[in-house]
Amino acid sequence: MANKPSIPKGTRDFGPDEMAKRNYIFDTIKSVYALYGFQQIETPAMETLQTLMGKYGDEGDKLLFKILNSGDFLKNAKDEELLERNPLKLQTKVAEKGLRYDLTVPFARYVVMHREELQMPFKRYQIQPVWRADRPQKGRYREFYQCDADIVGSVSLLNEVELMQIIDMVFAKFGIRVQIKINNRKILSGIAEVIGEADKIVQITTAIDKLDKIGLESVNAELAKEGIPTDAIEKLQPIIQLSGTNDEKLDTIAKVLSNSEIGMKGVEESRYILDALKKTNLKNEIELDLTLARGLNYYTGAIFEVKALDVQIGSITGGGRYDNLTGIFGMPGLSGVGISFGADRIYDVLNTLDLYPKSSVTGTQLLFINFGEKEMNYVLPFVAQARKANIRTEIFPDSVKMKKQMAYANAKNIPFVVLAGDSEIEQGKVTLKDMESGEQTLVSSEELISKLGL
Amino acid sequence: MANKPSIPKGTRDFGPDEMAKRNYIFDTIKSVYALYGFQQIETPAMETLQTLMGKYGDEGDKLLFKILNSGDFLKNAKDEELLERNPLKLQTKVAEKGLRYDLTVPFARYVVMHREELQMPFKRYQIQPVWRADRPQKGRYREFYQCDADIVGSVSLLNEVELMQIIDMVFAKFGIRVQIKINNRKILSGIAEVIGEADKIVQITTAIDKLDKIGLESVNAELAKEGIPTDAIEKLQPIIQLSGTNDEKLDTIAKVLSNSEIGMKGVEESRYILDALKKTNLKNEIELDLTLARGLNYYTGAIFEVKALDVQIGSITGGGRYDNLTGIFGMPGLSGVGISFGADRIYDVLNTLDLYPKSSVTGTQLLFINFGEKEMNYVLPFVAQARKANIRTEIFPDSVKMKKQMAYANAKNIPFVVLAGDSEIEQGKVTLKDMESGEQTLVSSEELISKLGL
Repeated sequence: MANKPSIPKGTRDFGPDEMAKRNYIFDTIKSVYALYGFQQIETPAMETLQTLMGKYGDEGDKLLFKILNSGDFLKNAKDEELLERNPLKLQTKVAEKGLRYDLTVPFARYVVMHREELQMPFKRYQIQPVWRADRPQKGRYREFYQCDADIVGSVSLLNEVELMQIIDMVFAKFGIRVQIKINNRKILSGIAEVIGEADKIVQITTAIDKLDKIGLESVNAELAKEGIPTDAIEKLQPIIQLSGTNDEKLDTIAKVLSNSEIGMKGVEESRYILDALKKTNLKNEIELDLTLARGLNYYTGAIFEVKALDVQIGSITGGGRYDNLTGIFGMPGLSGVGISFGADRIYDVLNTLDLYPKSSVTGTQLLFINFGEKEMNYVLPFVAQARKANIRTEIFPDSVKMKKQMAYANAKNIPFVVLAGDSEIEQGKVTLKDMESGEQTLVSSEELISKLGL
Repeated sequence: MANKPSIPKGTRDFGPDEMAKRNYIFDTIKSVYALYGFQQIETPAMETLQTLMGKYGDEGDKLLFKILNSGDFLKNAKDEELLERNPLKLQTKVAEKGLRYDLTVPFARYVVMHREELQMPFKRYQIQPVWRADRPQKGRYREFYQCDADIVGSVSLLNEVELMQIIDMVFAKFGIRVQIKINNRKILSGIAEVIGEADKIVQITTAIDKLDKIGLESVNAELAKEGIPTDAIEKLQPIIQLSGTNDEKLDTIAKVLSNSEIGMKGVEESRYILDALKKTNLKNEIELDLTLARGLNYYTGAIFEVKALDVQIGSITGGGRYDNLTGIFGMPGLSGVGISFGADRIYDVLNTLDLYPKSSVTGTQLLFINFGEKEMNYVLPFVAQARKANIRTEIFPDSVKMKKQMAYANAKNIPFVVLAGDSEIEQGKVTLKDMESGEQTLVSSEELISKLGL
């Protein structure tokens, strides 16, 4: 009953080369998170639908993968309900669990369930796959990893400062030049307040964002088209044409928002964060950008986003401050701030720029060619010594044609192979071949290790 | 709409301490797999039901978690079928995908789909969760990790030898004393052949296994009860009372099985593996044990199992040789051999014996106490220097009561804290407090790093 196998659309296998690269990405991010005192947690792939539903909007509810109940999954559905064939109504009768859609809701659920054990502030990171029944397309998958770090239970802006340092350090380690953009929800609220158009923030920032492309007049025309009154557009001019250093920008904004309490709070927060970061020798530029308006329904303070400078691709990291993560689970008033690295896009950027360090993608370092049982018995002590010296070492298990064994070394990008026949045995040594240069050297066990060891 | 959150039964959250321990386990296993030239792959959590169904028996099919189709999931089911309410028939109409049940079937599927890219022999490891709708009970979960390594495309017994070395090295690194048991399916087939009872292997080995507990006479009585004829039981006596070294056991078995070709093949294979291992200085004992009969329908050659010597718990690692991994997906004749570490049980053993190295469970190494903005500005360069020296360092973000900050350090098991007030600022130093001894020392930035750095 052979059938040609396949995998569900939108999912991926990761082979050895991809895994080595992905491990390099995750290990780098993990090491920086840990350096700043974040601790890893993991939550189950499955959550109850009660935990998941209603957290991501109607569209999100549809995109949740639901797990069919075990056993008689129809037992909660009446005949009439079945014949009515309303999938939205029936799905929660046949399914009680779903696959997690992001790491934020499971984290909120985790904090509430474990509140008694947790010492606040709680600094956690979490690197796990999430699942969304989105229409698959280039760069969008139904299973992908998120890499989140959050601090909850502290309103200190030092947390924002440290998260910016983490972002800077991670990309410095990758060798990816980035621009870190920062904004503040309170500044945006202030702008809307000052011009009396509290519900038009999105339209305003979207229009402002086009300044470089379409010019000032067209931006103003678009604002008018969106129903912003002339005098409000007038007031917006300093904001639309905002330029200069971050400090100059903050001075300009402060003038416009001087009558808005929330707006001035946003200016003050941004100034604190940017001033503190001046003392930290960031490798990458950080820019105050008012057009940054991600997650407006969610974020309440600072908002962050990272763009790669040398590759055209969307945001590769983002985050911000939120004020009520756990309220939906009955634990109000817990403020937090977090970031999330986009592993799939970072993978693409590293590939495009060819930035993987050689050591991160080298698997086996040394292969012993198999010439038969006698020769194998001779080399086994060499193999043991190499592994003892922590050199990743293989023996080709079958004594097949040399050509096949060398093809194996090449396919696995193994940099060195060992050859040992009668002549080597006589001299108590082995021949070490450098696969890149082709150079062959007769070496003792000690010389072998010192040539390859770290 | 606050509701008290919970997680699906049989699933677990892993908090920071558990994660540190689990990472230690996985990292140790990974490092040894890599040292022997195995490469990591990952496959999607979801597989098509076509891939999964029929591979684990009827019971396994029931225990698969199925994913409800997105959108109108009833569209493939007729009214009559719905009203018939047969869950087994309906489930494949409303679900096309399921969660992986183990790592073996996805691996087989992977090998077949990627056969063109793979260089044989293919040595892969895979560490990912699997899901089973089993009734949850102590030590049995609906989501748990498997840690498999397999070599496919090579019939060389060197692979078996290396897998035994891997097992030995992993448990040596953990400091867990184990007994590695080895058997061979061909020996068992030989025994059944010689006594003319090919279909009674399981009953025979089950009875033999009780020798220590119930004595020879009762074992023979049980064999008779199972329908084994008297002369066959007579022939079995040397096998039942098998004792001595592995070599002595093999000699005895060889005498009994001298007329069975397959049995003698099993003896020869076992002798080769055990002889080769004699030269490798295993830290743990390896014992030939004919009562080892796991996976009889699956394994075709060597069978392995590992028991902890100092903790009463089931098998903590197992594996064996199989001959037709990929046949079910239309790629026959591919032999392989593999092992699987039982991470959850190893976790329990390490906990029971308290064997975690301190470094593996220490998160943050250094906490800077927050006395206010002026003091924070003073310590920031110290913080930066510590992190530059790779010391995992935190600043307490809020300037709250000292007692609360010290409680945080204690809860997170942070071994050192830094205190810096006016007196320290005046001297250009900080006070380093050893949280275990209580000792306080005034140190410069360099002294701080040399005290904590590696």
